[in-house]
Amino acid sequence: MLITPSINGTRLLGRLDAFAAIGATADGGVDRQALTEGDRRARAAITEIALARGFAVSQDGAANLFIHRPGGHVGTLPLLIGSHLDTQPTGGRFDGALGVLAALEVLESLEDADIQTAAPIELVVWTNEEGCRFASGSMGAQAFVDGALSDTLLKSRSTDGLRLADELAATLKALPQARPCTLGKPIAGYLELHIEQAQRLECAGIPIGVVTGVQATRWLQVSVTGEAGHAGTTPLSARRDPMHATSMGLARLYETIMRDDAHARFTVGRMTVEPGSINAIPSTVVFYIDIRHPGLKELDAIEAQITGTLRDAATGTGCTIAIERVFDMEPARFDDTLINAIEDVAKARGVASTRMVSGAFHDALFVSRVAPTAMIFVPCRDGISHNPREFVEPEFCIMGADILFHAALRASEMTVSAAEPGIKTTAISNNHKGVGT
Amino acid sequence: MLITPSINGTRLLGRLDAFAAIGATADGGVDRQALTEGDRRARAAITEIALARGFAVSQDGAANLFIHRPGGHVGTLPLLIGSHLDTQPTGGRFDGALGVLAALEVLESLEDADIQTAAPIELVVWTNEEGCRFASGSMGAQAFVDGALSDTLLKSRSTDGLRLADELAATLKALPQARPCTLGKPIAGYLELHIEQAQRLECAGIPIGVVTGVQATRWLQVSVTGEAGHAGTTPLSARRDPMHATSMGLARLYETIMRDDAHARFTVGRMTVEPGSINAIPSTVVFYIDIRHPGLKELDAIEAQITGTLRDAATGTGCTIAIERVFDMEPARFDDTLINAIEDVAKARGVASTRMVSGAFHDALFVSRVAPTAMIFVPCRDGISHNPREFVEPEFCIMGADILFHAALRASEMTVSAAEPGIKTTAISNNHKGVGT
Repeated sequence: MLITPSINGTRLLGRLDAFAAIGATADGGVDRQALTEGDRRARAAITEIALARGFAVSQDGAANLFIHRPGGHVGTLPLLIGSHLDTQPTGGRFDGALGVLAALEVLESLEDADIQTAAPIELVVWTNEEGCRFASGSMGAQAFVDGALSDTLLKSRSTDGLRLADELAATLKALPQARPCTLGKPIAGYLELHIEQAQRLECAGIPIGVVTGVQATRWLQVSVTGEAGHAGTTPLSARRDPMHATSMGLARLYETIMRDDAHARFTVGRMTVEPGSINAIPSTVVFYIDIRHPGLKELDAIEAQITGTLRDAATGTGCTIAIERVFDMEPARFDDTLINAIEDVAKARGVASTRMVSGAFHDALFVSRVAPTAMIFVPCRDGISHNPREFVEPEFCIMGADILFHAALRASEMTVSAAEPGIKTTAISNNHKGVGT
Repeated sequence: MLITPSINGTRLLGRLDAFAAIGATADGGVDRQALTEGDRRARAAITEIALARGFAVSQDGAANLFIHRPGGHVGTLPLLIGSHLDTQPTGGRFDGALGVLAALEVLESLEDADIQTAAPIELVVWTNEEGCRFASGSMGAQAFVDGALSDTLLKSRSTDGLRLADELAATLKALPQARPCTLGKPIAGYLELHIEQAQRLECAGIPIGVVTGVQATRWLQVSVTGEAGHAGTTPLSARRDPMHATSMGLARLYETIMRDDAHARFTVGRMTVEPGSINAIPSTVVFYIDIRHPGLKELDAIEAQITGTLRDAATGTGCTIAIERVFDMEPARFDDTLINAIEDVAKARGVASTRMVSGAFHDALFVSRVAPTAMIFVPCRDGISHNPREFVEPEFCIMGADILFHAALRASEMTVSAAEPGIKTTAISNNHKGVGT
């Protein structure tokens, strides 16, 4: 099959405008948090477009929404393309929406050009990627991977006090046009277009990022305990001050970890000081460290450095310390064949691309556990995201959708080749576990 | 007048036990916060003892309670002796109570021995020294100095939601036996016995501290502002991290200020990190620094060092900083004549004493602005205070009360000498301002 057509850039930009109006805020941003009325209106809007084009629409028990365009080979697993439609409360127009609307554009453009793909291509709208109204993020994609939502999660409540189970049920009920489907159904693979949410592409002047994986993330909870005391009467020799220990330890870590390794990330974003009196030496300082690195070995070394440095600082000030890993996400390595396919497609389309590791989580991180997965990044201005000022140049939106279009076509052919009995192929590699290939 | 008698140690220890039962907690501590039912019961108990001994009892508009034993010279201003009866919620048996009950013991012992002092000696129980239920501390002593309680203060609410004006009125009403007196009435001088709440006396093995003043205290509010960002995607070069700035700055200050000067105190007891997400570079860190020093010049130098160091740390990380003085208490210098008198009395009684500057605030700090004032410290075990484990050896309680007894006798003579027309005397120096001498 020789493909020359591409997507309709004008239609894509129009759709981005139309969906930005759903949950629009006065400052030009979007507030369309997961499972709210705004989220439901966005689901209804995309469903309406899909049904008008004759695509089948379904939703699973986690309210992940699927828009199906059949392939030429009967019984072949679908290639998923998509992202999410929910936003942060002070979100922008592109985070998530670009990936979903570009995927819609892929389906419509295939339909417009009357192209018969080998495998079915299916748009997916993952539920609650942002995790701001209901914790935690990528909820829909995780449920898809696990095949279920836990009872604990279903009973959990949103920041506005509502139960997840109730909000999910109401969201599903609001879209009777979508037929129910199994949570965690098998798929052939997954491709996601997303804004970079950083400045590497922008600074390098390259419009397409070929995402090879997601860096590892670890959260450490650190509790430094000393002894409360009177700020005025206690001399240095009698102090066991956990804030002293914390400052000394963190100062050393800030000056080494990220300076020594450009790929390392070290962040302290939350801290509590007890009892919190201005005129009392604190008894306890509790803080959280977020560390990230594309390599697991390097991340282990960073954690060891943190542990050693903070222990020394605590000991040096007469304090005790407890360090606990409260979150541990191994690095995700995306599918080599899909990565190569995106890279080849970009080259064939005359668009510069660069391989990169994602600094942030995405739904694709979870999906990659059960199916061959890859991502395409486009630059966003100044790297700003989760902000009304989030902006992507129209040409980059169109370029990203075009690469997604051609990569999906390529992948749908490979998928079928791999699935056909008796044909040996390396088209999609097997560095993943689980269902779907 | 030749004095050989002293106080009744057994009675004093009995009184300490009796008052520790008022608001006693299960762990051996005392919870008798200002203007609560417990505080009122303690006021009623001391009033009952006073009236039974024939002393006149009065209370001013701030509920400061006075127990009057007349002097021999008609029309002479009273010498005040006392402290406070309120405690922290997790308070001990001695902080405040020792000074009040030792003062009661002085009055009763004078009565027992039928000693006629020159000036009247008056016990004072200051209202709300602790400042934990109603801010701020030494409220009664400050109102006494100002001659009024501000409307803002009267409208302020306690930690349990009650209005100061209402709680004051109820406390005054609960003690109809005490006749009303003017807030801020003139006095001849003030002596206060208190526990040290630190370990200097204990470490030196000296039972009596002759307090020469209270060190200066300053509170600085520091706001460091950077830019929130994604913990995973933002490289070091793009970070403006206020926690980085704060750690660097504080580490340098912890390693210099108190190491370079044994009299300096540097404490960071309160810190807030915004927005407080584990996976977001913070936008703002706000913290408070409590600095103290007996010398104003030295305190100024410490503040300058803090400002310079923190500004450098903020600039070095691309952050901005705002530093504001939110509290500024000049050092108090107690009355030389009274200091000498206490020292002489201790020597005459064969008790070792040492001069010292108080690291903590006391009611005496405020009273010293309007009348000649001095304090006597006794050691408390391990320096522990504001804690059920607060403990003072019985012998030190008795020793402290004995020194107070003799110092009060000495001061009541000096007061009259100074007040008598036509007699030049340096008995009480004039390094203070205001009423009363």
